[in-house]
Amino acid sequence: MTFLEKVKIGVFKCGNIGVAPIFELLLDELAEREDLKVRTVTTGSKMGAEDVEEALPKLFEFDPNLIVFISPNPAIPGPAKVRETLSEKGIPSVVVSDGVAKRIKDELGEQGLGYMIIMGDPLIGARREFLDPIEMAIFNSNILKVLAITGVLRLLHQEIDRLVAIIREGLTPTLPRLLIDTALIRDSSDFQNPYAKAKAMAAYELTKKIAEIDTRACFIEKEREKYIPLVACAHEIAQTAAKLAEEAREIEKYSDTLARKPHSKKGQPQTKAKLMLPPSPDEKVYKRWFKTLQP
Amino acid sequence: MTFLEKVKIGVFKCGNIGVAPIFELLLDELAEREDLKVRTVTTGSKMGAEDVEEALPKLFEFDPNLIVFISPNPAIPGPAKVRETLSEKGIPSVVVSDGVAKRIKDELGEQGLGYMIIMGDPLIGARREFLDPIEMAIFNSNILKVLAITGVLRLLHQEIDRLVAIIREGLTPTLPRLLIDTALIRDSSDFQNPYAKAKAMAAYELTKKIAEIDTRACFIEKEREKYIPLVACAHEIAQTAAKLAEEAREIEKYSDTLARKPHSKKGQPQTKAKLMLPPSPDEKVYKRWFKTLQP
Amino acid sequence: MTFLEKVKIGVFKCGNIGVAPIFELLLDELAEREDLKVRTVTTGSKMGAEDVEEALPKLFEFDPNLIVFISPNPAIPGPAKVRETLSEKGIPSVVVSDGVAKRIKDELGEQGLGYMIIMGDPLIGARREFLDPIEMAIFNSNILKVLAITGVLRLLHQEIDRLVAIIREGLTPTLPRLLIDTALIRDSSDFQNPYAKAKAMAAYELTKKIAEIDTRACFIEKEREKYIPLVACAHEIAQTAAKLAEEAREIEKYSDTLARKPHSKKGQPQTKAKLMLPPSPDEKVYKRWFKTLQP
Amino acid sequence: MTFLEKVKIGVFKCGNIGVAPIFELLLDELAEREDLKVRTVTTGSKMGAEDVEEALPKLFEFDPNLIVFISPNPAIPGPAKVRETLSEKGIPSVVVSDGVAKRIKDELGEQGLGYMIIMGDPLIGARREFLDPIEMAIFNSNILKVLAITGVLRLLHQEIDRLVAIIREGLTPTLPRLLIDTALIRDSSDFQNPYAKAKAMAAYELTKKIAEIDTRACFIEKEREKYIPLVACAHEIAQTAAKLAEEAREIEKYSDTLARKPHSKKGQPQTKAKLMLPPSPDEKVYKRWFKTLQP
Amino acid sequence: MTFLEKVKIGVFKCGNIGVAPIFELLLDELAEREDLKVRTVTTGSKMGAEDVEEALPKLFEFDPNLIVFISPNPAIPGPAKVRETLSEKGIPSVVVSDGVAKRIKDELGEQGLGYMIIMGDPLIGARREFLDPIEMAIFNSNILKVLAITGVLRLLHQEIDRLVAIIREGLTPTLPRLLIDTALIRDSSDFQNPYAKAKAMAAYELTKKIAEIDTRACFIEKEREKYIPLVACAHEIAQTAAKLAEEAREIEKYSDTLARKPHSKKGQPQTKAKLMLPPSPDEKVYKRWFKTLQP
Amino acid sequence: MTFLEKVKIGVFKCGNIGVAPIFELLLDELAEREDLKVRTVTTGSKMGAEDVEEALPKLFEFDPNLIVFISPNPAIPGPAKVRETLSEKGIPSVVVSDGVAKRIKDELGEQGLGYMIIMGDPLIGARREFLDPIEMAIFNSNILKVLAITGVLRLLHQEIDRLVAIIREGLTPTLPRLLIDTALIRDSSDFQNPYAKAKAMAAYELTKKIAEIDTRACFIEKEREKYIPLVACAHEIAQTAAKLAEEAREIEKYSDTLARKPHSKKGQPQTKAKLMLPPSPDEKVYKRWFKTLQP
Repeated sequence: MTFLEKVKIGVFKCGNIGVAPIFELLLDELAEREDLKVRTVTTGSKMGAEDVEEALPKLFEFDPNLIVFISPNPAIPGPAKVRETLSEKGIPSVVVSDGVAKRIKDELGEQGLGYMIIMGDPLIGARREFLDPIEMAIFNSNILKVLAITGVLRLLHQEIDRLVAIIREGLTPTLPRLLIDTALIRDSSDFQNPYAKAKAMAAYELTKKIAEIDTRACFIEKEREKYIPLVACAHEIAQTAAKLAEEAREIEKYSDTLARKPHSKKGQPQTKAKLMLPPSPDEKVYKRWFKTLQP
Repeated sequence: MTFLEKVKIGVFKCGNIGVAPIFELLLDELAEREDLKVRTVTTGSKMGAEDVEEALPKLFEFDPNLIVFISPNPAIPGPAKVRETLSEKGIPSVVVSDGVAKRIKDELGEQGLGYMIIMGDPLIGARREFLDPIEMAIFNSNILKVLAITGVLRLLHQEIDRLVAIIREGLTPTLPRLLIDTALIRDSSDFQNPYAKAKAMAAYELTKKIAEIDTRACFIEKEREKYIPLVACAHEIAQTAAKLAEEAREIEKYSDTLARKPHSKKGQPQTKAKLMLPPSPDEKVYKRWFKTLQP
Repeated sequence: MTFLEKVKIGVFKCGNIGVAPIFELLLDELAEREDLKVRTVTTGSKMGAEDVEEALPKLFEFDPNLIVFISPNPAIPGPAKVRETLSEKGIPSVVVSDGVAKRIKDELGEQGLGYMIIMGDPLIGARREFLDPIEMAIFNSNILKVLAITGVLRLLHQEIDRLVAIIREGLTPTLPRLLIDTALIRDSSDFQNPYAKAKAMAAYELTKKIAEIDTRACFIEKEREKYIPLVACAHEIAQTAAKLAEEAREIEKYSDTLARKPHSKKGQPQTKAKLMLPPSPDEKVYKRWFKTLQP
Repeated sequence: MTFLEKVKIGVFKCGNIGVAPIFELLLDELAEREDLKVRTVTTGSKMGAEDVEEALPKLFEFDPNLIVFISPNPAIPGPAKVRETLSEKGIPSVVVSDGVAKRIKDELGEQGLGYMIIMGDPLIGARREFLDPIEMAIFNSNILKVLAITGVLRLLHQEIDRLVAIIREGLTPTLPRLLIDTALIRDSSDFQNPYAKAKAMAAYELTKKIAEIDTRACFIEKEREKYIPLVACAHEIAQTAAKLAEEAREIEKYSDTLARKPHSKKGQPQTKAKLMLPPSPDEKVYKRWFKTLQP
Repeated sequence: MTFLEKVKIGVFKCGNIGVAPIFELLLDELAEREDLKVRTVTTGSKMGAEDVEEALPKLFEFDPNLIVFISPNPAIPGPAKVRETLSEKGIPSVVVSDGVAKRIKDELGEQGLGYMIIMGDPLIGARREFLDPIEMAIFNSNILKVLAITGVLRLLHQEIDRLVAIIREGLTPTLPRLLIDTALIRDSSDFQNPYAKAKAMAAYELTKKIAEIDTRACFIEKEREKYIPLVACAHEIAQTAAKLAEEAREIEKYSDTLARKPHSKKGQPQTKAKLMLPPSPDEKVYKRWFKTLQP
Repeated sequence: MTFLEKVKIGVFKCGNIGVAPIFELLLDELAEREDLKVRTVTTGSKMGAEDVEEALPKLFEFDPNLIVFISPNPAIPGPAKVRETLSEKGIPSVVVSDGVAKRIKDELGEQGLGYMIIMGDPLIGARREFLDPIEMAIFNSNILKVLAITGVLRLLHQEIDRLVAIIREGLTPTLPRLLIDTALIRDSSDFQNPYAKAKAMAAYELTKKIAEIDTRACFIEKEREKYIPLVACAHEIAQTAAKLAEEAREIEKYSDTLARKPHSKKGQPQTKAKLMLPPSPDEKVYKRWFKTLQP
């Protein structure tokens, strides 16, 4: 049981989901944390087996104490290879993925991997008549906003914060097994105003609808006349969902009750509501963490 | 002069700027390009010298044919070290950075590095009373939307596309030396409607204003009562800029003239406007590329 | 084969769905049609067997030439009784219902009844902590707007117009068998602008999402803390869907291409686009009607 | 003086006004009331004398204890015939109509009929170049939203609730004599926030403006170039009024003070404000009802 | 018949109406006209007889060739005195006023004064519980926007432009006799899109509604509980009207058809539509001016 | 030391800035103040030396006790002449100008003139291809709204109120020396909600950005293709700034905390927040005024 000065987090990404682009930044938003460092290796939008084989080994060379693996479809060969390797290595590892991963949930458990499956992190409208780099970036912008405001990103960083705190103490953490669906959003939300929460939940439900439509547009419809309107429709929903989420957040601003939970320099969770006041340590979260350590 | 089947792009990121999170995705938005692969190594939000020293060597192990280095402040020790190393290695390298980098523009040239300096990629409101992971993500979402819609991301990916095409032919490319300011946005825009362009330019100018305010809030004002309203003000402008950019894009939708420029499987630039029609090869861009190769 | 001066349409409603409140008005929006008259009998929001038994016979006393039966759940006892009676009477009858009716589609066919099943006509958030008369009316307002703009109401009135035209000639019409889902919306839309259509489709998909959430909130969740946020969330989506639909319609206004299809005094379908011009007979629709009469 | 298990309400509608389509639903929004049942007979958008003569008798066959007659212009022959018949029958009857009815207010009193005249329930833009079934439905959607949010529908259902409660006790109610104008909206509003109320009043005033413009467009202007812009202008105001009303309601959501007044199963008026709490009996309304019974 | 190098316009304002604050600026928006100069004398918000007596003489000391008198209520003593004086002096004079002036229209004609009566330039909500300098300024901002976009300001400056052109030639102009109501807005509008025009007309009708409500609130209602909601309601309508007008203008931007009619240095009317093109002389307006000079 | 019954304020305007058009109205928004009167002389949009020479003398003929001089660029010949004259006359005088005046701040002090320099009162987009009377009026409308809501107009009228109160007592006031920049907006704001204040500050920063862009467009860029997009961009920012300011004000409405500070009949400052309550004397402001009189 050794205390670590800094917990080293290795992040491996292949392919993209909504939370992937800014994942590491969530852990150290002020770039001041002294209790951790992050090293990331990615293969861009590709997730082939050869990509994984070439890139993954580099991550281990960083000697991470905790690994986060982010990928859209952890069942196909490339990502499956990653899971297998992580399972063998025995370093505490968490898979972050989207709704498609739900079906291998049990397998993930058997592999000894933690997971956070984000049901509302939808497939993009990947049709060449529609998707160019700009459309792709806008879609990511919209989804990112929804994931941030609804509380998904909060759940994510708090779970990793917990793991970091426990690993740093030289203890063995319970890995997360989270299916992030609307019920969890509803029950763990930071919103003070119930209508704000309802709007945020609505935004989250909309992202699930996007997934449904884009799946049809990308894998089922074969004719241009049929799939173009569908991907366009899905991305319009993404834009609408982002607006709805934003509206939810505005409500909290209107009553100056917007929760903010920055990390202290030492990595401690802090919390605050009134804008003009400073944050204070978030005792509630601490206690929850302790609990998970009790037998 | 050897033809490369695939150009391997190594991306190194330390610290974060608005284009960083989705940079690689811009190059291969459909994850189908057969002419390149991407490997990224990053150090999260940190940009210390030790972070660089530990992480950068891994990038070279991938044997990249082209390197992109993305960082907010390439003058400070960590990133300076990166630049120095890139300069020594002699692999074609491009620095992507924000307005702060303008003052080392000449130095970058002397180091033999290409650069794309994005004047409208602003500093975040990094004050602990204000910035938590969620606020950080939302800010990134807003800035990403502005950069996408105004044309910054287009300029970025087209420059890299050009380099890839030329390197692939075994030729030596002229590295970009771009200061991406409103004038360039104005003169290279995809917008058909002049009011859409004016709104996009307005959004871009707003991001520069954010940079100005956040710099004051983060580095000059010392009292909470003074800097909190400033960072909050800057992030409100970010939200407004994103809306304004979105409005610009909507105008093009209203007349069905929205430009889309996806990559073909072979990495060729394509272009289209009417939503229901397929894209065709973008001859204009090709010709521009050729030109840069002539003496 | 007798020509009818006026076709008499008997409408029977028990319980409510989104199209029910203004259904008759769709057929004679200017109150000037000389080729039909409408008589409606309803039982308010109730749909019990006794309600049906008392009210339905009055409808037959009007001697209708065509019957339209509108109800949310045609499988439960009251409405089932109506279907059975209609089936026996042999008067051409069309059932208009919501997505729940999809599962008795075949049975409806066997009973010799036409049907128009509107997949995007969602269950209301019927929880007493949430739904009062005002909330109910607002929900209906939002759904009505979506159904109007997306084209559902167009499909509905054109089918009835067709039946009226054919019955009036003393001919026997083919009864409609329509499942009004997004694919039909997409393929039969009046929109000229493809983004307007995509937004309208998005609005329609949202109404289906409402149905899904309200079903969970009304029939599955048992605790107030769980179902109140869900019904509130569903109604927020309804509001959002109405806005999105409205936005779609605005696009057509912006290019002065908004389709209008009023009835002439004689009940002929007319059509127009430019606002300042008069409508002219809609030949396309006529031809489609003829077709259905050919063997 | 006999207690009635269920009060039977007969609703007769000829022609359409904004409150007509969902009137019955207001009385039993959850379809669970055990103290009343509703039977409606309507003639669609037509209001000719022959329509009335054929349809009205059916209503009486239901033996109603209370009759509500809804029509836009109770002075013209068809509706006048209805009033006359109701006056003769002696069943407690209430006329619900729009601003045009104001001028026969006294006559209604002399006929022994109650009335609720809604000054802000405007004439539609009934010009064939403009009004098709879709435009008609959208207009109704907008007006419905305004009537719901401003409090008109609240006044309506509470009056009928009162009549039902009193008739059910076997007592003779005082029939309502209400002119629902902005002053009444102002003085009987459920809004907690005074700006919300001001916005709601503004929305209501706008509906009166619509009536004024549509009257000019439908009955005074004769040339297409003159009346088309007017009906279009009136319907734009309807859309604006709906948005303004919605904004008023949002304000109450923002402070979680939105009043909800559902009916209990037994038909008792209930009331609540905070979204997550259950409703409780509305004592204030009860007391008001009693008062009207005292001599 | 002498040619004037510069026409000198004397403007006298007492009290305020919506067009008053920026009236002179309309005539020389680029401050480059060489054919006129403007001298204004005003008495602030006061319009007492003594104010007039003290201030008006100064105007004559400027020796104006044309006088414009702007005041909200030209029938009360102070402004009546102004009219009388203007009538005696014999210098071509035009009264610009709001709807209240309609009733002295004939008197104005008899006094030999021109007039432009703006029916949609409403009374402000002048109640001390509501109106402070800020609320006053915001109201003026909203009304100004409506008057600008709907075309009222266009009518105003074109009439004065005409007078200047004719007076400059040493000729005697026909003075304007304009009642600027919705019909004139409709018939003389610069809008290309008919829905934009309808929205602008709607905005203008709303300003007339404001006048109606504020008149009630300021002069009829005596209790605070009654008049405060009314003035608040009226100013909400002003805000809404400004938004609606802005929306109308946006439509023209969306199709790049927004009319611009700047003055040339020599004061000639110019016109243009496409944003990126230069203006050209407005022949249509010239011809209209000539016509008014023919007997 | 003589008490004055009415303080006479002479206002001289040449050229235009955002606060100019409604300046006098700020002092007497209800036209009921008995402690002052206002006389204004202006030269329209022109600010040449000859304009000043002709018009300024008239102002002195009114024998003002306090002079306010409003002009956009007090350094150029015309306005410089005004300053010089005011300096000689010795009547307490205050210059109100925009950011350009900052550089002659010290000179103004030396001339014994008070000043209020509004950094966020921007240059208009004065290019003939863009600016016509309508565009000019809309720009003024937008800027006026920003200046009103952010608190600039409050600062202005309170300073003049203070001078009036002191001069009326026969005392000699300290003239204001105010540079109205975002810091002052932040520190003297009436907003209760910190996010409202942040949005207002954002709006104000945007007006400064407009100044920057319009200066470039009007004085630096020479080609139409370059400057038209810039002025259009600047005016889009003005529209956005007005919306943002409006949003800030709405927040205060939502919690019924909007500050209102009307003048009493006797010119005393009053204050209030809850809409339905009457204002009361503003003791805080009084005390501040006294303080400035102490040595």
